[in-house]
Amino acid sequence: MADWQQWEETKAAGVTHARGFRAAGVRCGLKTESDDLALIACDTLASVAGVFTTNRVQASSVVYSRRVAEGGQARAILCNAGNANACNGPRGMADTERMAALAARELGAEPGRVLVASTGIIGHPLPMEKLEDGVPRAAAALARGPAADATVARAIMTTDTRPKQFAVECRAPQWSGPVRIGGVCKGSGMIAPNMATMLCFLTTDAEVAPDALRLALHEAVRTSFNRTTVDGDTSTNDMVLLLASGASGVRIDGAAMDAFVEALGRVCRHLAREVARDGEGATKLVEVVVRGAATEADADRIGRTIAESPLVKTALFGCDPNWGRILMAAGRSGAAFDPDCATVRLGDIVVFERGQRAPFDAQAAHAYLKQPEVTLTVDCGDGRAAATFYTCDYSYDYIRINAEYHT
Amino acid sequence: MADWQQWEETKAAGVTHARGFRAAGVRCGLKTESDDLALIACDTLASVAGVFTTNRVQASSVVYSRRVAEGGQARAILCNAGNANACNGPRGMADTERMAALAARELGAEPGRVLVASTGIIGHPLPMEKLEDGVPRAAAALARGPAADATVARAIMTTDTRPKQFAVECRAPQWSGPVRIGGVCKGSGMIAPNMATMLCFLTTDAEVAPDALRLALHEAVRTSFNRTTVDGDTSTNDMVLLLASGASGVRIDGAAMDAFVEALGRVCRHLAREVARDGEGATKLVEVVVRGAATEADADRIGRTIAESPLVKTALFGCDPNWGRILMAAGRSGAAFDPDCATVRLGDIVVFERGQRAPFDAQAAHAYLKQPEVTLTVDCGDGRAAATFYTCDYSYDYIRINAEYHT
Repeated sequence: MADWQQWEETKAAGVTHARGFRAAGVRCGLKTESDDLALIACDTLASVAGVFTTNRVQASSVVYSRRVAEGGQARAILCNAGNANACNGPRGMADTERMAALAARELGAEPGRVLVASTGIIGHPLPMEKLEDGVPRAAAALARGPAADATVARAIMTTDTRPKQFAVECRAPQWSGPVRIGGVCKGSGMIAPNMATMLCFLTTDAEVAPDALRLALHEAVRTSFNRTTVDGDTSTNDMVLLLASGASGVRIDGAAMDAFVEALGRVCRHLAREVARDGEGATKLVEVVVRGAATEADADRIGRTIAESPLVKTALFGCDPNWGRILMAAGRSGAAFDPDCATVRLGDIVVFERGQRAPFDAQAAHAYLKQPEVTLTVDCGDGRAAATFYTCDYSYDYIRINAEYHT
Repeated sequence: MADWQQWEETKAAGVTHARGFRAAGVRCGLKTESDDLALIACDTLASVAGVFTTNRVQASSVVYSRRVAEGGQARAILCNAGNANACNGPRGMADTERMAALAARELGAEPGRVLVASTGIIGHPLPMEKLEDGVPRAAAALARGPAADATVARAIMTTDTRPKQFAVECRAPQWSGPVRIGGVCKGSGMIAPNMATMLCFLTTDAEVAPDALRLALHEAVRTSFNRTTVDGDTSTNDMVLLLASGASGVRIDGAAMDAFVEALGRVCRHLAREVARDGEGATKLVEVVVRGAATEADADRIGRTIAESPLVKTALFGCDPNWGRILMAAGRSGAAFDPDCATVRLGDIVVFERGQRAPFDAQAAHAYLKQPEVTLTVDCGDGRAAATFYTCDYSYDYIRINAEYHT
């Protein structure tokens, strides 16, 4: 863990907290009642890194932006909500390229340096006339500061019930000065680990070479977004993008890197928790902590299976201390797991210990599960590996939101 | 496919349709308002085969009955509902052994020849005094015929809304005479493939050696219960047991085997479909057919992921022709899948064809999805392998049943 000389967090700022960035969210008419187009621009050519969905069915924005990210440098991110532009054939890719060209023209950049993201319904062509109109307005509105950040956080929402952003300013002994990292994300359903799990756009004013930035982002995503699940369904459109402007003048390499990865990981975990907390229909944020596993792969499998189990998630909605379902999920995870060595806790309450029910106070456990944030801990008693997953419960509203959502 | 000389089905009979079996279901007080103890007995020592849960957390009945099945011969199956006798430590195994001993005493059999199954809540010790009283009464009630079969089908239910049994009498050219196969099953939640997925007890009067019986059962389960899923959650207690009395005098081996495997598969698929249809909160039976996959493993992965996807299942509850979610699930399955080669059908309605939405009538698709039985077909356009899964939709009642179920 880094020895922070300074660590200041804020939820009132997001993507322009880091120096060198401007942003705007506007309404272009893809959704009926809210802003739906966001532009995040760097004053100079930024280093870029991206993590993209592992789904074999990929929206054209994913294919396109992966190519841009591989180039290592970018000027901007353009994101629309309300239409995923996925499964639209050759027209889909042409529309994505046109979105990039529109933003590039406004910024005086090359189209190959603009990242594009889309979220919303699958299989409906983008109404490009709305974007032809909207992108210049977004570019004209670009600004720095909390008000601009807030418009971006709102413009990328779909079934989200609240905007999600977070920013830090921090200073580590190995750094020549303070660095700012900020981010915004959206995601409520179709959230599962092992890919970028949702849209998240991160900015920093650290100076980081593209290769180092990629390593830092992969490490940060591994223990945050890739361990976040609402329904186990991995979207076709998801990505995490990180732009580094270098405007702080603080160069991150060598010994300065560890603290940067840790800071980035903290920002990602904060945002990932907010995604789980705002999962479709969620009434609570659930952290599933697996300890004492033989390997990290085992900890990962056990945590993921518990976090995705419909029977665990419905029991959490009912505030029922149903440790049998937690054990069932651990047992079917495919990982090495011996209930005779395992301990299960709800918060601090031991409910199962080495093969048998522990004598616990069911009323107290029920009361604990009524909290808006709960932690389930499974100690496998089998080693030293650990993993933490972020998820939520399954409520009537999950069914309502997804059964009443019509194509 | 066998060239059946005779094929007669009935839902009015179950485990005593085959000759040589008697059965009874009685109330012993593990549940408050229904029968909860079933005994199925063979007049002689039967060949036995079993398939058991793959969950690492296994009830003592699973551990015990696997051992009995490995012996190749059994006299009876004793099953209680209302208490899973899982995660009860050494006492759990002692209670399972006591159940077997109680039934064995009544039948004049060895305890090591009685199979035991349990279903219900996890982590509560069995009230053995109720079983000490119930088992002799079940043994005294043993009888043949539809009335006896019906008591068994009811006594093994938990959250099931209806009993599930099926029986056939059939004759194939390779057989010396008619053979009867019957079965009963239960299962409503905690249902997932890759194990015996629920309790199912099958009987036949064919004469089959234990090794051949094992092969036949594994093949039949592979394409039936192991492709049935309600919620992807694999229980700690599940098993499929098959007893062969030999009372028909028809010996099944060599060339006679194929038709027996096919008949057994048909019975298993019928029962598996009934389990999916009666999934917790289900409003419809859904068959997910995958065709044109490169390998059967790919077809299996794609079918399973679609059948378990919460977003597909909620769309089905909403009768929404949301092919985007079907593609999303296929794409995240881990199998080779190229949407540019794929076709998706709802019944006969093509909704997606080679990379793009097909021009279909949304009203007609919506109306189709309102049927009590629907079929989704994904043709991968990539090979010749196929797989069919049996599942159901996710409704408000799934949440209600599982959130209001208190430990």
